[in-house]
Amino acid sequence: MPKKIKKINSSRRNFLAGSATVAGAAAAATVLPISIASANHTDKGARGLPSWTGWKKRSALIIHSDKGMETHRAAIGNSVITPLRHVYIRNNMPTMSDAQIGNRNKWKLKVEGVKNPKTYTLAQLKQLAQKTEATILQCSGNGRGFFGHKPRGSQWETGAAACLIWTGCPVSAIIKDCGGLASGAKFLTATGADMPKQLNPKKALVERSIPIKAQKDAFVAWEVNGVNIPNSHGGPLRMVTPGYFGINNVKHVGKLAFTAKESSVKYMKSSYRISPIGKKGSQYPSCWEMPVKSWIVSPLKSAKSGNVVVSGVAMGGTKKVSNIKVSVDGGKSWKKAKFTGPDMGKFAWRRFVFETKLKPGNYKIVSKASAGGKSQPKLRMENRRGYAHNGWLDHGVDIKVS
Amino acid sequence: MPKKIKKINSSRRNFLAGSATVAGAAAAATVLPISIASANHTDKGARGLPSWTGWKKRSALIIHSDKGMETHRAAIGNSVITPLRHVYIRNNMPTMSDAQIGNRNKWKLKVEGVKNPKTYTLAQLKQLAQKTEATILQCSGNGRGFFGHKPRGSQWETGAAACLIWTGCPVSAIIKDCGGLASGAKFLTATGADMPKQLNPKKALVERSIPIKAQKDAFVAWEVNGVNIPNSHGGPLRMVTPGYFGINNVKHVGKLAFTAKESSVKYMKSSYRISPIGKKGSQYPSCWEMPVKSWIVSPLKSAKSGNVVVSGVAMGGTKKVSNIKVSVDGGKSWKKAKFTGPDMGKFAWRRFVFETKLKPGNYKIVSKASAGGKSQPKLRMENRRGYAHNGWLDHGVDIKVS
Repeated sequence: MPKKIKKINSSRRNFLAGSATVAGAAAAATVLPISIASANHTDKGARGLPSWTGWKKRSALIIHSDKGMETHRAAIGNSVITPLRHVYIRNNMPTMSDAQIGNRNKWKLKVEGVKNPKTYTLAQLKQLAQKTEATILQCSGNGRGFFGHKPRGSQWETGAAACLIWTGCPVSAIIKDCGGLASGAKFLTATGADMPKQLNPKKALVERSIPIKAQKDAFVAWEVNGVNIPNSHGGPLRMVTPGYFGINNVKHVGKLAFTAKESSVKYMKSSYRISPIGKKGSQYPSCWEMPVKSWIVSPLKSAKSGNVVVSGVAMGGTKKVSNIKVSVDGGKSWKKAKFTGPDMGKFAWRRFVFETKLKPGNYKIVSKASAGGKSQPKLRMENRRGYAHNGWLDHGVDIKVS
Repeated sequence: MPKKIKKINSSRRNFLAGSATVAGAAAAATVLPISIASANHTDKGARGLPSWTGWKKRSALIIHSDKGMETHRAAIGNSVITPLRHVYIRNNMPTMSDAQIGNRNKWKLKVEGVKNPKTYTLAQLKQLAQKTEATILQCSGNGRGFFGHKPRGSQWETGAAACLIWTGCPVSAIIKDCGGLASGAKFLTATGADMPKQLNPKKALVERSIPIKAQKDAFVAWEVNGVNIPNSHGGPLRMVTPGYFGINNVKHVGKLAFTAKESSVKYMKSSYRISPIGKKGSQYPSCWEMPVKSWIVSPLKSAKSGNVVVSGVAMGGTKKVSNIKVSVDGGKSWKKAKFTGPDMGKFAWRRFVFETKLKPGNYKIVSKASAGGKSQPKLRMENRRGYAHNGWLDHGVDIKVS
């Protein structure tokens, strides 16, 4: 590894030096010009993608910004699992490069808030325990583009969401291996190793706390859809918090801590809070568990009269999705649709199809899912930043049948 | 489309002209030099892959020939579904090109042996009915490389197999739409449209018959792992016969016929027959239903002493895999392993893990699956062409623990 780049690596991870550096090495003092740290975000390739996501399929994506790329509604496919080249990107920090990451098997995860704190290498985690699970990754702001007050942030419609299969080490196995939780642990707090050193951790450190009960499902993953997690999706090691919004699935995870309090960084304290329009603060609910939601994937604009197969996806958040209904008249009358394809567990979405006959005309097709006794509401819950939209009306599609 | 290439397309499909061409157009009389028809098979790119599979991940594959590429044992990943770029290739005919295929939605499927024979476009099939299902694609000769008598053909070990998610139209919906089966239908016979015209259909036509009972699970698919089926995997439309060996999943499918007899082409009559060494003929069983099988995926060569996570895949063919055992002493003693990850239905494979502690030394790790009351045998069933190998001993791995 070139010496200069090695310094970037150590430098990046220095935010964890409060107790010990993740890399286990003293940080270099060099302050890097921001242009170096973020170079991989601004260097767009010939296909209109930033070079660090050059492996993505351009035609499957809507580019909102150099850190925000949405999957076209039609590009999630019908195969339950979203193809990796189609999966959305939403980054708070620049993606770490191969050079910054170094040997993936030597990536370190520090564990605190347990009886016997330890630091694991990725190779050690692979030999501790393994689980494979399908989960939905969904940005808290997915659906923001439907809000009337145009909240700040990427104007996602449906495509800041994907259903993926991960393999990693269960957090419960790590806790057990570390002798159990320290007393007073109320939160599972995960910290990303991706913040460039010159930034202020209070403002830029991606550190997220979730209720300790979530540890039973959570895991740290090194594989997604059968391959090593790409850097742009937070490899070599990413926190996976089934049923919780994307931000809690911390990328490039370097530390897990079982803490008495929520983290005090901006991304926990003030960002990702569901507050009324015009208000903000840590007293409002954090973007944690995802609500029940569904949307139509096909058709999107037109169809030929006669047999029409309407298809879509439905998810239950942390609950199993139990029921899906479709309306072709904008919600005046509803019929039950059927789930199709494999049931990959409550944290995955289900595909649904609704076979119907339509005469020429205009239709508003909407879908409404239920899970854990709750159904999607008709309208969005208005909130300052446009988070957690699961209203069925906005997610409908207007179709011309000819 | 260039006129010359359009001719290739019509020419290719002319074998179906007995009743009507699939493309619905009279075939051009031009006889093509074989070098044009097979050009896409011999033109190897810089990465050592034939250009028509240039999108594959070279490092995931073992190249046996220009029509046979195997997935490395380690490259199927832990995510149940095999990444498409890692999936094996086994072709009897050259892959059709985009130009030969033309507009994918206009691809035609002729249906015979029903009360009201019809020809569907792919667009029509998409609007008739849809199902999504995970199935295993496995070459009949997977495991041939373990046979002692070195049968002719690619010397596959474990990697001519993949677990994939398909979306398509159920054959049962097509039968219903065509008014039901004609009387006397005993086989579902599917015909590929990929044979270059200058070849003799009796010798080169890929046409496969399977027992009519298989129609209830079978479907014609246009999507795999969330994307249009790539040409090299038989797009735009491929027969999917859950639980049946790969050859029955006819690529570039142009005709479905419900027939009283099995097809008389070579690929049905004499190839893919499980006959004793030194014997051949249509009196021997065809490669239809796959038997129960499993193999170790990790570790493959070495491990560090202490905790070792052994992982692998197990499949039941047409039956649900019910049980998986692992032995670290070459089959002297067995312990139950646990399934992990989503259960995607009986036609998919299950991932299994076996967490153990190993001291330094040499180990032979083997796995043995059960399904439908049957377990894998210890030894392979010797046969002329090395088909249907599911013996557990040959599939074991020798590991050095240090």
